[in-house]
Amino acid sequence: MTEPTRASSTRRRDGWSWTDLLLGRPLTSAQASHEQVGVLAGVALLGLDALSSAAYGPEAALTVLRPLGGGGVGVLLPITLSIVGLLVVVATSYRQTIAAYPRGGGAYTVARENLGRPVGLLAASALLLDYLLNVAVGISAGVGAITSAFPALRPHTLGLALGLLGLLTLVNLRGAREAGALFLLPTALFIGSLVALLAMGTFRAVAAGGAPVPVVAPPALPPVSSGLGVWLILRAFASGCTAMTGVEAVSNAVPVFRAPSVRRARVTLSLIILVLVVLLVGVAVLCRLYGVGATVPEGPGYQSVLSQLLAAVTGRGVFYYVAMTSILGVLALSANTSFAGFPRVCWLLAMDRYLPVAFVHRGRRLAYSRGILLLAVLAGALIVASGAVTDRLIPLFAIGALLAFTLSQAGMVVYWTRHPSEGWRWRRALNGLGATLTGVALAIVCVAKFTHGGWAAVVLIPLGVLLFSRVHAAYLRMRRQTGLSRPLRLDTRESLVAVVPVSRWSHASETALRFALGLCQDVRAVHVCTDDDDVVPGTLSREWARFVEEPAVRARLHAPRLEELPSPYRGLVQPLLDYVDTLLAEDDHRTVAVVLPELLERQWYRAVMYGRRAELLRSTLLLSGARRVVVISVPWYLRSDLETRGHAPLEPGAPSAPH
Amino acid sequence: MTEPTRASSTRRRDGWSWTDLLLGRPLTSAQASHEQVGVLAGVALLGLDALSSAAYGPEAALTVLRPLGGGGVGVLLPITLSIVGLLVVVATSYRQTIAAYPRGGGAYTVARENLGRPVGLLAASALLLDYLLNVAVGISAGVGAITSAFPALRPHTLGLALGLLGLLTLVNLRGAREAGALFLLPTALFIGSLVALLAMGTFRAVAAGGAPVPVVAPPALPPVSSGLGVWLILRAFASGCTAMTGVEAVSNAVPVFRAPSVRRARVTLSLIILVLVVLLVGVAVLCRLYGVGATVPEGPGYQSVLSQLLAAVTGRGVFYYVAMTSILGVLALSANTSFAGFPRVCWLLAMDRYLPVAFVHRGRRLAYSRGILLLAVLAGALIVASGAVTDRLIPLFAIGALLAFTLSQAGMVVYWTRHPSEGWRWRRALNGLGATLTGVALAIVCVAKFTHGGWAAVVLIPLGVLLFSRVHAAYLRMRRQTGLSRPLRLDTRESLVAVVPVSRWSHASETALRFALGLCQDVRAVHVCTDDDDVVPGTLSREWARFVEEPAVRARLHAPRLEELPSPYRGLVQPLLDYVDTLLAEDDHRTVAVVLPELLERQWYRAVMYGRRAELLRSTLLLSGARRVVVISVPWYLRSDLETRGHAPLEPGAPSAPH
Repeated sequence: MTEPTRASSTRRRDGWSWTDLLLGRPLTSAQASHEQVGVLAGVALLGLDALSSAAYGPEAALTVLRPLGGGGVGVLLPITLSIVGLLVVVATSYRQTIAAYPRGGGAYTVARENLGRPVGLLAASALLLDYLLNVAVGISAGVGAITSAFPALRPHTLGLALGLLGLLTLVNLRGAREAGALFLLPTALFIGSLVALLAMGTFRAVAAGGAPVPVVAPPALPPVSSGLGVWLILRAFASGCTAMTGVEAVSNAVPVFRAPSVRRARVTLSLIILVLVVLLVGVAVLCRLYGVGATVPEGPGYQSVLSQLLAAVTGRGVFYYVAMTSILGVLALSANTSFAGFPRVCWLLAMDRYLPVAFVHRGRRLAYSRGILLLAVLAGALIVASGAVTDRLIPLFAIGALLAFTLSQAGMVVYWTRHPSEGWRWRRALNGLGATLTGVALAIVCVAKFTHGGWAAVVLIPLGVLLFSRVHAAYLRMRRQTGLSRPLRLDTRESLVAVVPVSRWSHASETALRFALGLCQDVRAVHVCTDDDDVVPGTLSREWARFVEEPAVRARLHAPRLEELPSPYRGLVQPLLDYVDTLLAEDDHRTVAVVLPELLERQWYRAVMYGRRAELLRSTLLLSGARRVVVISVPWYLRSDLETRGHAPLEPGAPSAPH
Repeated sequence: MTEPTRASSTRRRDGWSWTDLLLGRPLTSAQASHEQVGVLAGVALLGLDALSSAAYGPEAALTVLRPLGGGGVGVLLPITLSIVGLLVVVATSYRQTIAAYPRGGGAYTVARENLGRPVGLLAASALLLDYLLNVAVGISAGVGAITSAFPALRPHTLGLALGLLGLLTLVNLRGAREAGALFLLPTALFIGSLVALLAMGTFRAVAAGGAPVPVVAPPALPPVSSGLGVWLILRAFASGCTAMTGVEAVSNAVPVFRAPSVRRARVTLSLIILVLVVLLVGVAVLCRLYGVGATVPEGPGYQSVLSQLLAAVTGRGVFYYVAMTSILGVLALSANTSFAGFPRVCWLLAMDRYLPVAFVHRGRRLAYSRGILLLAVLAGALIVASGAVTDRLIPLFAIGALLAFTLSQAGMVVYWTRHPSEGWRWRRALNGLGATLTGVALAIVCVAKFTHGGWAAVVLIPLGVLLFSRVHAAYLRMRRQTGLSRPLRLDTRESLVAVVPVSRWSHASETALRFALGLCQDVRAVHVCTDDDDVVPGTLSREWARFVEEPAVRARLHAPRLEELPSPYRGLVQPLLDYVDTLLAEDDHRTVAVVLPELLERQWYRAVMYGRRAELLRSTLLLSGARRVVVISVPWYLRSDLETRGHAPLEPGAPSAPH
């Protein structure tokens, strides 16, 4: 009887299936090391968000500086240097966090342990918002860049964005290692071509004595329309700060690295920051040397800063197109960092029961599947709602990231105070500096962007904290109520009544009835008279007397009576519910066991055809309110056509009665 | 314990709810007469499909006749007269069907009883296709007419069409009487304004001695581009035959009328046909007198025939707009006839088990809710798929209707031969004439429209028959396999093992365990070690020894052992399934009772939060293949916060054990 099931349960592991092909073979928990990565894959897996900043950070700052005309290009370098300074401080303090929290020290963990749970939840909420927006913004920006390169694709913007989201989801469901390996090539291409650009640009500038002639001249810079002011500088700095997002990803995901994981994580973070600093400073220097500024976004002659720079240094040859392709690819893939971070934060929250326990579960490839799927669904909704045009989301995004940074580093200050180890003073000073700088940047971004959508972050982040608290309260209530620390009680012998709904005398109803008769003395068969009965009225009661009551009396059993329940509104459920309630009201110490004959087929899709009535009855009985009931499903399986021809005996398929 | 449930079950009848407000109070089966209608409501409920033909039948014929130029208008009258003749013959023979089948004599019933079941199913399939297409075409045409009158609405075509479909669905779910009452006013307005048009047009023509001058001259007729040929006449006839659809609706729905229902149904049918004949002939005469022909559909200066006629007779005053509005309204509502017919055919098929038994069930207002919903879903899908442009569906539509007519009347010929009563010879002759004429019309439409989509009907109608046969075969198989005509067997005493999945020692697991201990001697508690356990390993087995085994030994019971099941793939279901299969393989005469502790809340929406694991286990156990298992759900209800504050005792909520 069990052969078909056996076969299907083992096939899942030995053969292959479409699910295996799509998502990869399942991995056992013991194979966890299989999914850990090294430094290079770690850069590809966790670094794309930070590295892609090199493509849009300078552009964001230069756009704010446009009113300065040619002077703006000059101001870019000091602004970039201050951002780079902030970046180095933040990264150094995250290197310390990695050492202090080798199990993954995201903003949530650090803030919770050092500043208290409410602050931890605030950091978690900010970080989740940041990760979510990074996916929506990253994919939309990437697809936007691709469609401006290939205008023929523009009508398919939404489809491309959702397709890319689906691809990232699928790759991440297949596990960290595959995602890292897959993104290694585009990452290498991106870094390689930008470093080549910087080298060639610098060489040509030096060769030309500091005043190189662009191969393709960039568009003329606009005339000066405003003087240099503090507010303008601050706004440019705030815009450039979007380059900071993604720096925390490595510290959040230390366990993803192969042993020694702390060391690998620190090397990975340093490598990412080093490359990013080189790219940011290099771009700022070359922009000044070649006179490249920002063109009007959405304007007719729009060209990204990197595109202008590439054309100015190398002309529009093969290299230009290879480099542009790698930039577009990395922009589009920068969302992947969130797929590494978001599910881990969900996992941490679920471990502490601030999110449902389902987020703890690792999927077939040991990835936190539910977190990945939640991120994909939320980001997909955001992309569809915004039509893949996400400019308005960018301010929220920087606010979430900077808030998480500030809280995490403030937490580290407390950490060093509590755990004074070698060199703790200068470490604390460094973290304090980081917290202060990111706090100031946060204040600037909040003020500069509040009316441009920043207010939404001020609403959404506390809403997240509220959600976590509600989930936690529900979980605590459940724990408190169900918790039991006394031995099993065996003295409560109460009365049991079995109710068997019967529509006609059949194998299914016989099997259920037999089980009920073994269960207790008091068995009531009930027949609800709905309008879809197809038997002549009275047939069932005649059959009952002949087929059930007579043999039961002969066997000296209490004969189960058949009760006909009228159903004025033709429903099956309500009369039965009322009957159960009547039985319960008769005796305070009674439990009603509803024994449901379920007619099923082995193929689940066929079972749907017959199984719905029992399903409806069961869920209504259980969910319509607290009753002293037990619902017993007694299945009876239809044979397939093949078996029918073989005339297999029917009886062995039916469950037996308790004794 | 049962109070909240009681309250909720009685509220459904005594108070009010949103569902009541939307769908009307539930009616008991005894209140069936409440939903029956009289003649006038019957015309509105069942006649709109036929009556709206007056708006598009002449137009369809005139469009085919365009190549004849001015001569086409002259040919319209003889063609109309032959269609009217066919209509009268068909209607007369349906009057006889009504008398012969007072429980509703649709094409399915008549063909099945007189020509055999396969022919009956063919008629049913044709009729269902006709009804379905009538909804899609009627709504699309109505909305099309409305948007050409108000071009500002054009971008909302699909929304309007689906909204109208939703409205018709809702009204019909509220029951036949409300639908009839609601559509009475538009029907009356439509008939009234067209009769007024005919009266004024005739009066003005007579006053002008047979050559009236149009108030607004209709567009000039096109030059003659083709001679009068038999094929052209036949094609015009075939197009005009779309006016025939909807004639069978009354005969299908006799029980919807108040007693004496046969007489009321016959009067209703006669009234509908009388009005339709007057309108068709009147329009054909006036078209000739005022020189109105068809303009190019979809052309720039397109104007419907009735619009031209109204403008020619009365000018574009208030009357023109009132009449046009009523025409558009009736076109849009003509789909309603299908909502009366389709669910009744489904009901008949389900009574004979050619469709799932669910279609037999009458909803809260005694309407066949599932048939109505199925029609709405299918028509909605058609409307969305075609973007509410349904020209291509029209040929299919006439083929379905004419096939059903032909089969139904051929069936009546057999009926009169078998049941010779007073005047049976001329009745038979009349039905024979009807069958021949509709058969010829069917042949013409098939040939003329085969390449224009008619072929799809030739595919779809047999597919419907195939579907009915498969459902019937599945039903027969189910009946044959489950059918039992021997007494209850009580001698099969086989062994029972209870398996209780436990994640931690709690009230819920105690309750389930207590029930299992009462059920049989051999109870196995199993703990599947997944990765979302939040307890320290070993905690459960220590608690088990202390809280379960000790008291059980003291009570001299067989102590239930706790087995830890490893789960290498971290899943909950597969290890349990494998364990159950192992237990079953050990002993051929064993049944496994899986006792599931279910943690539930009284509010069903909260129950969703906790109930999913047990739900998943149960459905996998039952549906993954035939096993000798019984699944027992032992609920344990969490109290709401309110009750928690009141410190209500916990124990009474738990079900008791069997004895």
